[in-house]
Amino acid sequence: MLRPPLFQWAKAYNRSKLSDDAVAAVIVTIMLIPQSLAYAMLAGLPPEVGLYASILPLFAYALLGSSMTLAVGPVAVISLMTAAAISPIATPGSPEYLGAAILLSLLSGAILMGLGFARAGFLANLLSHPVISGFISASAILIAVSQFKHILGIPVYGHDMPTILLNLTTHLNETNLPTLIIGVSSMIFLFWVRSGLEPRLIKFGMTAAVAGTVAKAGPVMAVIVSTTIVSFFALHHAGVSIVGVIPNGLPVPSLPELDLTLATELLPAAFLISIVGFVETVSVGHTLAARRRERIQPNQELIGLGAANIASGFGGGFPVTGGFSRSVVNFEAGAKTPCAGVITAIMIAMTALFLTPLFEYLPKAVLAATVIVAVLSLVDLKAIHRVWIFSKPDFWAMLTTIAVVLGIGIEAGIVGGIVVSICFLLAKIARPHFAVIGQIPGTQHFRNVSRHNVLKSEKILAIRLDEMLYFLNGHTFEDAINELLSKNEHLTDLVLLCHAINEIDASGLEVLESINERLHSQNIKFHLSEVKGPVMDRLNRVGFKANLTGQIFLSHYEAMCTLDPACVTDGNTQSAGA
Amino acid sequence: MLRPPLFQWAKAYNRSKLSDDAVAAVIVTIMLIPQSLAYAMLAGLPPEVGLYASILPLFAYALLGSSMTLAVGPVAVISLMTAAAISPIATPGSPEYLGAAILLSLLSGAILMGLGFARAGFLANLLSHPVISGFISASAILIAVSQFKHILGIPVYGHDMPTILLNLTTHLNETNLPTLIIGVSSMIFLFWVRSGLEPRLIKFGMTAAVAGTVAKAGPVMAVIVSTTIVSFFALHHAGVSIVGVIPNGLPVPSLPELDLTLATELLPAAFLISIVGFVETVSVGHTLAARRRERIQPNQELIGLGAANIASGFGGGFPVTGGFSRSVVNFEAGAKTPCAGVITAIMIAMTALFLTPLFEYLPKAVLAATVIVAVLSLVDLKAIHRVWIFSKPDFWAMLTTIAVVLGIGIEAGIVGGIVVSICFLLAKIARPHFAVIGQIPGTQHFRNVSRHNVLKSEKILAIRLDEMLYFLNGHTFEDAINELLSKNEHLTDLVLLCHAINEIDASGLEVLESINERLHSQNIKFHLSEVKGPVMDRLNRVGFKANLTGQIFLSHYEAMCTLDPACVTDGNTQSAGA
Repeated sequence: MLRPPLFQWAKAYNRSKLSDDAVAAVIVTIMLIPQSLAYAMLAGLPPEVGLYASILPLFAYALLGSSMTLAVGPVAVISLMTAAAISPIATPGSPEYLGAAILLSLLSGAILMGLGFARAGFLANLLSHPVISGFISASAILIAVSQFKHILGIPVYGHDMPTILLNLTTHLNETNLPTLIIGVSSMIFLFWVRSGLEPRLIKFGMTAAVAGTVAKAGPVMAVIVSTTIVSFFALHHAGVSIVGVIPNGLPVPSLPELDLTLATELLPAAFLISIVGFVETVSVGHTLAARRRERIQPNQELIGLGAANIASGFGGGFPVTGGFSRSVVNFEAGAKTPCAGVITAIMIAMTALFLTPLFEYLPKAVLAATVIVAVLSLVDLKAIHRVWIFSKPDFWAMLTTIAVVLGIGIEAGIVGGIVVSICFLLAKIARPHFAVIGQIPGTQHFRNVSRHNVLKSEKILAIRLDEMLYFLNGHTFEDAINELLSKNEHLTDLVLLCHAINEIDASGLEVLESINERLHSQNIKFHLSEVKGPVMDRLNRVGFKANLTGQIFLSHYEAMCTLDPACVTDGNTQSAGA
Repeated sequence: MLRPPLFQWAKAYNRSKLSDDAVAAVIVTIMLIPQSLAYAMLAGLPPEVGLYASILPLFAYALLGSSMTLAVGPVAVISLMTAAAISPIATPGSPEYLGAAILLSLLSGAILMGLGFARAGFLANLLSHPVISGFISASAILIAVSQFKHILGIPVYGHDMPTILLNLTTHLNETNLPTLIIGVSSMIFLFWVRSGLEPRLIKFGMTAAVAGTVAKAGPVMAVIVSTTIVSFFALHHAGVSIVGVIPNGLPVPSLPELDLTLATELLPAAFLISIVGFVETVSVGHTLAARRRERIQPNQELIGLGAANIASGFGGGFPVTGGFSRSVVNFEAGAKTPCAGVITAIMIAMTALFLTPLFEYLPKAVLAATVIVAVLSLVDLKAIHRVWIFSKPDFWAMLTTIAVVLGIGIEAGIVGGIVVSICFLLAKIARPHFAVIGQIPGTQHFRNVSRHNVLKSEKILAIRLDEMLYFLNGHTFEDAINELLSKNEHLTDLVLLCHAINEIDASGLEVLESINERLHSQNIKFHLSEVKGPVMDRLNRVGFKANLTGQIFLSHYEAMCTLDPACVTDGNTQSAGA
């Protein structure tokens, strides 16, 4: 096993860090209580399950995780994926549904730990930044829309956009007015707290830290106020959906009986949940660690998250991961070590033990408003524009991800994004950039003739291939060379500058041999220059030099000097023309 | 539509070429008659269908194909794939089975033509040389083993190795002795004709050309002798399976009724048959064209092959493609244009019209022997060793292909080979080669410090990344830089030599920006040198330079001269130490 960072941070732990961690923990707990109830609702689970999923996993992560500031617990996207995975198998609210959620959490934990021990953290690299960004924005929109039913007080099923939109429009006439008023006013209040309250408090003389904390308490304030109103006016008799009686206390940690058929059915979903959860964790973990010059270890993260999910299942919860927004809050509130998570967990446990009766009259519309406001802050449409400017393939991968998440579903979106990125990568390699090069006067440097003012030899054609020479592009390269040959008569030598050929595979080797043979039949010598060490080693193993009609030069300048000393200006003599 | 090469070669056609083509056509026809009957049998079809598939497709290819010497018609691997695709749907020998084969041919033709018009010939590049080589060797072995039942005279079903081997062992005790004698002696005869007869004939004074033609007639000789023997001794009453009555004449060209359900079922198989057929055609076409300085156009080949398959279906045949061995024979026999194919087709049509009664007593064991001897010549075990020496990833892709073809089946093998090659390619990009570089004394050239005797600066770290900077490797590269920084104290500048960075995607850009920021916080300037034109264009579009703490240099030598003139030896002064 990897060495958990616990040993490092625990050694240097002191009262000052404890105090920092405790402050951060209080702020995160204030955020987490409504969020955990809301995300459990999003996952189709009883609200208390959200609390359960916010206790043991935080202990487990503190023991085995590698990030100092990651806040683990239920998050929106994983909750929606959980609902999408279990809904076809069991009825929401049934014991089977909860059992499946627990099993999903255990499976996901086992997969994450397995990947961690197999050091497969690199798998997260399959997701490019634009795909992740598009995925987050699109799933945030999907999640927000999925919560409209609670704001409107109408029954809507489905976990994909088309179904949700269809059901919403069908049931729109059944909208419950008191629910709508509570829901919309909560949303307005929460948006205002986020954007308007904090600067105003600071203007009125409050310190930034205190103002920030007050702003973070927005959801809790909404919960308190709305619960009071609903309970006082008995609005639940007017059709306002409320959370209802939450059992007091904590579940006895236990393992469910293993249902192999169910486990097999849940496996693909568990795998995708693991990958998405891991990527979310790694993204936020990297970002936060970089800000304090700390580092996270992806493989250790897999183990930490795996343990958190196993602990969640063990403690009656559902799949968890490191969330974006709570981790940022935890970081900014000054958390120094995972101990902040442990303190949060203890406070959540206290809540589950003693405070649940307070949530009985909490309207679901307020929880939905919490979810909507939380996820919409993750939508980043500006990123789409920036990616469009920088890289079209990245843009299309991003757009595919967004379109598939919104058109089909979250899981298909993540797979689609990966597949499209890889296809564009393969297409890039398959159509390599290729340049005829000449000498930049007064230097030993050679560049593209169509971009730079360079000196070219008549009899020696110098070319540069800007790609690995691989099965995907071997034939294309060979065709390009043949076309060049038909355009350049009277050649005596062809020099291939290889400094950008990072790899040659067996298909590439055959192409080089075939080019060599063809040039030989035309009495043109074939030379290579600046072949990379690892590539040269490989060519030497099959005796490539023996059949090569020309030579292999260390530098391209040396090649040109040797082949045609007359045509190369001295690297040290400044040419007047340059 | 692309311009069919027909217009070019037809213009320059003359009597000399006609005579060459006619000679080649006779030799190919002598090979093709037994092969077409045998491959029809391999596909589970009546023998005459093999003849039908050797008539119209050759006309169609002559009109639209781009290779001068490709011999189109039934080939072993496509025949086995046809059997594997149709067997689960219909009973061999039934009209439904034949109908499905015809539909498969039409579908495959439509797919090939569609890919041709979409200029998707590059798809063939997905198959690396080692995968193709492994695929051919393994399917040759599979095909040979599938024919053992005819040699032994026992009933064996199945188109995958495990099923065939299991059935062979179960039924081994039912072996028919006369059949076995005919089969084994035919095989010995055919192997001897291939390897022993030709040199002997030449030794006895025959010219090489005539000796070659006689050797090519081996299968026809086996057919004549065995048919005579079986008919004379009435061995079919002793349990020797014979071809039986073949209807005389040609089918009236017609289109089958389109069964959409069946078409949908056959579509995946049709796609794979198209790809394999195309790859086989392109491989042999490239090889032969290169020998005569001709070229084939992959997209035109798709159209030519597509037309051939549509013609095959139209004329009552099954999927066809350009075969390895017959094309080589056609080439070596001196064929100059696709007219050789037309002449072959006319001779096969004559055979179907007038000679079929001669095949009634032809033992199936002889056809099986023809198949076995033909395909075993395609097994190339030496290629495995060569690939092992040159490239381990290629070796594993090849081995996977072989193992999957032999363990699961032909279609899975081709898919498995592609998937494994792509995974290795992604893995290669994900773990980029990375070098600290220094100046080769007396030159302006910079190379890996661990491979070359170079000069290094104390304060300036120069590194070279040998890979595109992409989502797959961005984090890995960043980690590598961070590790280097922790090992090199007192740095003032870091120069990244970019000549091997062939592409930067949006994730790579974020990594560069993050490295720049980190270096900035440590008071180290970040410079780039020798950035490729297309990459620089892209960086400029997002104003990358604006935030870069250092500069972007045209050449690495210029960068080092500018940053620390003292430490760089003059490129023109020969250093004593080098």
